[in-house]
Amino acid sequence: MASHRRRLSPRLLALIVSVLLLAVSATAQIPSQNRVHWLDPYRDTSARLIKAATADDFAWRRLAELTDTYGNRLSGSENLSRAIAWAAETMKKDGLENVRLEPVMVPRWVRGRESAEIVDPPRHALAILGLGGSIATPPGGIEGDVVVVNSFDELRARAAEAKGKIVLFNAPFTTYSDTVTYRTGGARAAAQNGAIAVLVRAVGPIGLRTPHTGSVNYGQTAPQIPAATVSVEDADRIARIIGRGQRVRVRLSMEAKFEPDAESANVVGEIRGRERPEEIVLIGGHIDSWDVGAGASDDGVGCVITWEAVRLMSRLGIRPRRTVRLVLFTNEENGLRGANAYAERHAAHANNHVFALESDSGVFEPASLGFTGSPGARNMVREIGTLLAGLGLSEIVSGGGGADVGPIAQAGNAPTMAYLGNPGRYFAIHHTAADTVERIAPEEVSKAAAAVAVMTYVVAEMPERLPR
Amino acid sequence: MASHRRRLSPRLLALIVSVLLLAVSATAQIPSQNRVHWLDPYRDTSARLIKAATADDFAWRRLAELTDTYGNRLSGSENLSRAIAWAAETMKKDGLENVRLEPVMVPRWVRGRESAEIVDPPRHALAILGLGGSIATPPGGIEGDVVVVNSFDELRARAAEAKGKIVLFNAPFTTYSDTVTYRTGGARAAAQNGAIAVLVRAVGPIGLRTPHTGSVNYGQTAPQIPAATVSVEDADRIARIIGRGQRVRVRLSMEAKFEPDAESANVVGEIRGRERPEEIVLIGGHIDSWDVGAGASDDGVGCVITWEAVRLMSRLGIRPRRTVRLVLFTNEENGLRGANAYAERHAAHANNHVFALESDSGVFEPASLGFTGSPGARNMVREIGTLLAGLGLSEIVSGGGGADVGPIAQAGNAPTMAYLGNPGRYFAIHHTAADTVERIAPEEVSKAAAAVAVMTYVVAEMPERLPR
Repeated sequence: MASHRRRLSPRLLALIVSVLLLAVSATAQIPSQNRVHWLDPYRDTSARLIKAATADDFAWRRLAELTDTYGNRLSGSENLSRAIAWAAETMKKDGLENVRLEPVMVPRWVRGRESAEIVDPPRHALAILGLGGSIATPPGGIEGDVVVVNSFDELRARAAEAKGKIVLFNAPFTTYSDTVTYRTGGARAAAQNGAIAVLVRAVGPIGLRTPHTGSVNYGQTAPQIPAATVSVEDADRIARIIGRGQRVRVRLSMEAKFEPDAESANVVGEIRGRERPEEIVLIGGHIDSWDVGAGASDDGVGCVITWEAVRLMSRLGIRPRRTVRLVLFTNEENGLRGANAYAERHAAHANNHVFALESDSGVFEPASLGFTGSPGARNMVREIGTLLAGLGLSEIVSGGGGADVGPIAQAGNAPTMAYLGNPGRYFAIHHTAADTVERIAPEEVSKAAAAVAVMTYVVAEMPERLPR
Repeated sequence: MASHRRRLSPRLLALIVSVLLLAVSATAQIPSQNRVHWLDPYRDTSARLIKAATADDFAWRRLAELTDTYGNRLSGSENLSRAIAWAAETMKKDGLENVRLEPVMVPRWVRGRESAEIVDPPRHALAILGLGGSIATPPGGIEGDVVVVNSFDELRARAAEAKGKIVLFNAPFTTYSDTVTYRTGGARAAAQNGAIAVLVRAVGPIGLRTPHTGSVNYGQTAPQIPAATVSVEDADRIARIIGRGQRVRVRLSMEAKFEPDAESANVVGEIRGRERPEEIVLIGGHIDSWDVGAGASDDGVGCVITWEAVRLMSRLGIRPRRTVRLVLFTNEENGLRGANAYAERHAAHANNHVFALESDSGVFEPASLGFTGSPGARNMVREIGTLLAGLGLSEIVSGGGGADVGPIAQAGNAPTMAYLGNPGRYFAIHHTAADTVERIAPEEVSKAAAAVAVMTYVVAEMPERLPR
């Protein structure tokens, strides 16, 4: 509605100011234009890689094919075996070289049926997931009153109350590294105080009654007790009822068990180096996953973006000076047997690994590249990052690497890098039934593949290896 | 960082403009001050009700107590019986009058165990919920290839393909009323074309592998076939695999069954009218729920906010001219037996129901009040709405009422109103395991209770009944 008293409408005023702010901001953000001249030989090829990676949704569709067809891929499962065979076959079709399976024996933990309910006050199912590696309950389940604690300190302070009870660790999610300690170590601490089972509040932000699974670590000394995670809502509900002065009695039933170790494999494919084939630029993710969801962000997408980097080099006829080696590791989630087997098998050539890049944090935006290495290598990598300005990834943050490239990189003292997706979005679905391809935008996958391709190409191509 | 070239920092500029915009906007929003003089006698009491309702989180805590202690409350369940007994007892403690249970026999459908998986390509569990009222599968489950259709029209066009198959209705969620037709009518349509079972894409926006249950309506003529809903992600996954030219084979196992009808009851409490006790202002929600989640938004909160309106009147010593009657209906979800029993029991007094307000759409903000009635009544209700300006609820939208107050209001030609929560947030958790109290802010409950209290009080107090 017009008003004769106002000369300038709020909309017009807002528009004018927006334009002004944009102008000021744009001026402030103009880069310093310190063009890195040593990168000039790589600019055209980098641009071609970025253009090819972002031209379509090929990488997303490959991720969808992997996760749709094979579903989740826990170590020892038929799904994982089939996915591994498909990956090797498809790498060959892509034109990758030296495609092979490097065999690894992996643990085979089987969840079986599981359930939990509050039996008093009236019956109500809890949303749980048994923790990977947990023992089973007795066949009829295990029943006990619940003691809620918010920390290891509180458990110590109330140790006498835990005996014969089910301990619920109800620490609110802050960061993954801070709160995952209850999932890995809660069972041990509870058992040391005489608890008969442990429940751990889901390690993640509140979802939709969404439990997050993960590994339990019993240690060597405490008795093993059944361990499961419960959704945030269920944990809070139990805490509220107890807070009203009522007791909560829970029955937990789990059939979990270990079967004999199973055959599995790391999947390897390469582009053989043009001049220094013995020097390896290692990139990859892990092809196994937890047995819920579809292992899309953890870590199908890590496999796909690193694979895509190699596929695009192959397709564009790019053969760098050094060998680019793609490894899709097995058994990252519950054993790291793939990572350790790779490091053992290639121990004699550990020093030839000049760089190792892993993607195991999803590709949700805003994403970044993280680096760990010597100051000299860091400076060079930062300069290579300027080639990624068009992708919004020019800044290289501190801290890179990962569980799978860790052992070989440590043995060879190699610089390491990680593609780091937005942790907020990642940990919302991490280790849950909702880790599916629907949550990942095709553009996020393409962009990640482009960044990995350029970084890999330049490090594999430049005359001197990255300083250690 | 300071810059000598800029006299005005962007932050300061933005601040100045924000203040200017706020000032202009505030001026533009000053109401027209058409004070409704006939409401003057009700202003003080209305203000007291609003102040009392919004002073604390009592209503939210009551909702938490209901949903924590009794959990979900499907018709015929022990949880529902206990919740009904608790509600009646608590209404008495609140000082409500004529508190009573009006018995109703309700259907008792029991879900039992259920599961579904893609058996080929490799085994992968589907996130499903059997539909309420569905029959069971044979004990070993039922297995078939999946045919995906996006509409009833597409099913008709591809009728020959459905015979002997499992039909998946995969219509994307638009509005609830548009897409719920596949949940209610999908089984019938599929069975008429020879399908052996039906899956229906979850009726709601994508969640976290979250299926939404609800009723299936087999009709009289088609064979009854097992019916379940699958999460959006699972539906899309099946569609993608088939889109790649592969077949998808699914096994569905359901133990669902009807047991004999069970005793239940509507819970009734009143404030007896000061001058015209025979005239009834009816308010309420339904105390039953589906058997997943905790029935917090559907419809524990509808019970609590209408109950709170009566409790506050009682506590503040407000006894309006007419009787205010609170009814917590049973069996809204799968039978409407409570609503029909109320209408039958009170048929002789249907004309004495001067107004009926129902809350069964949650209280998520932005919320609104909706009204259905004669133009005369609408005008008065709109004017009463001006008392709710401080709550942001002054505008009364078109369309109010609900399934539970419907039968008696229709019989008595009474004007009806609904408290309408934001449908986007409501349908994200509607009929899911995630319908819990955590999702509802205490302020949203208090505000809704305040609005219902004022509307109820004025309609019950004003000299003439609302025109029909």
